[in-house]
Amino acid sequence: MPHINLSNDFPGIRSLFVYRPETAGPLNALVQTLLHDPHPSLSPGERELIATYVSGLNNCYYCTNIHGAIAKHHLGDDAETVKAVLAHADTAPISDKLKALLKIAAKVQSGGKNVTETDVAAARAEGATDVEIHDTVLIAAAFCMYNRYVDGLATWQPHNDELYDKMGSQRAREGYGTPPVKVSEMQLTQTI
Amino acid sequence: MPHINLSNDFPGIRSLFVYRPETAGPLNALVQTLLHDPHPSLSPGERELIATYVSGLNNCYYCTNIHGAIAKHHLGDDAETVKAVLAHADTAPISDKLKALLKIAAKVQSGGKNVTETDVAAARAEGATDVEIHDTVLIAAAFCMYNRYVDGLATWQPHNDELYDKMGSQRAREGYGTPPVKVSEMQLTQTI
Repeated sequence: MPHINLSNDFPGIRSLFVYRPETAGPLNALVQTLLHDPHPSLSPGERELIATYVSGLNNCYYCTNIHGAIAKHHLGDDAETVKAVLAHADTAPISDKLKALLKIAAKVQSGGKNVTETDVAAARAEGATDVEIHDTVLIAAAFCMYNRYVDGLATWQPHNDELYDKMGSQRAREGYGTPPVKVSEMQLTQTI
Repeated sequence: MPHINLSNDFPGIRSLFVYRPETAGPLNALVQTLLHDPHPSLSPGERELIATYVSGLNNCYYCTNIHGAIAKHHLGDDAETVKAVLAHADTAPISDKLKALLKIAAKVQSGGKNVTETDVAAARAEGATDVEIHDTVLIAAAFCMYNRYVDGLATWQPHNDELYDKMGSQRAREGYGTPPVKVSEMQLTQTI
C-alpha cells in the first residue's frame, strides 16, 4: 500500500503524476525528451534499454518492467534483447558502443563520481559522441530519481506481464504525453 | 576537466544547461516547482535545506554549496542552520517535523525501498502532511539525479564561498528561470 493516500488506482509513477500534477509536468517532459523525442544518433529503443538497465540495477520492479516493455516494442523483438541486457549486458545482442554506454550508466547509478576518464574513453573508442555520453549520464541519473520516487512512496506495482506489455505498447507508439489507459479498461486476460 | 566538451565557462549544472537546452527546460522547471514555487506548507528555505542535505549525503560539492547558499538567503541567517543540518541534522535548529522529513530524505538517498511505514508514521506524528511527505521523497530523489548529473560529467565546481553566495542570492531572489550571471562578471574578491 502506498505510504500516502494517492486517491487513484493507477500503477507506479502514473499514480504519483495524477496525485501531484505540478511536478508531473516537468517529470513527464524530461522522460519524453530523454527517451522518446528525436535524437541525433541513439534510437528510442537504445535509450529505453539504458533506462531499463538502470532501473534493474536499482531493483525497481515497475520501472524495469514498463521501460523493458517500451524497449521491446521499439526494438520489435520478443523481449530477448531486454532480457539479455538485464541478465548479462556484456553478452547481450547490442552494439559494442551501447555496451560501453551501459558501463557508464552503471557507474552513474552507483554514484556520479565513479565515472572515470577510462570509461568515457572506452565509449569514445566504440564511436560514442559527446551528446550520447551526456544523454547516457542524464538518463542513468534520471532513473536514479524515477526509481526512488516510485519505490520511496511504495506505489502499487502489479506483477502482470500483460499489463506492462499493453502500457509499453501505448508509450512506444504515443510517447509519454498522452493520458494512461485505466487498468480496469485494459481487458486483461491475466488477473492482478 | 569535464568528461565532454561543454564549450562554456559556467560552473556545475549551469554548464550542462547551456550545453543541452532540450533537457535544461524540464530539469529547471522541476527544481523551480519543487524548491521555489509557492507551497501549501513548506517554505523555500525548508525545501532548499532538504536539497542541501541530500546533496551532502551524495557528496556533491557544487549542489551542496549552491543549495546551501540559496537556503541561507531564504532563511536569512549566517548559514548556521545549513552548517548544522550538514553536520548533525538531529541537533540542528530546525523543527522536529523537518528533522523527521530529513530522515525520510536520507532513506530515499540510500534507496527508495528503504523508506518504511515507521519513518512515515514518525513524520506524521510531528505534523507532516501527505503533500510534505510526497515532496520530501521527490526532492530527495531529484537530487539523487542532479548530483549524479553534475558529478557524472565531471563539471567545473570552483571552491569559492563568495561565488556560491552570489549565485545563491540570485536564485533565492529570482528562482531558477533567469539566466545565470557569468563568473567573469561577478566581481569576486576571492580568486578561483
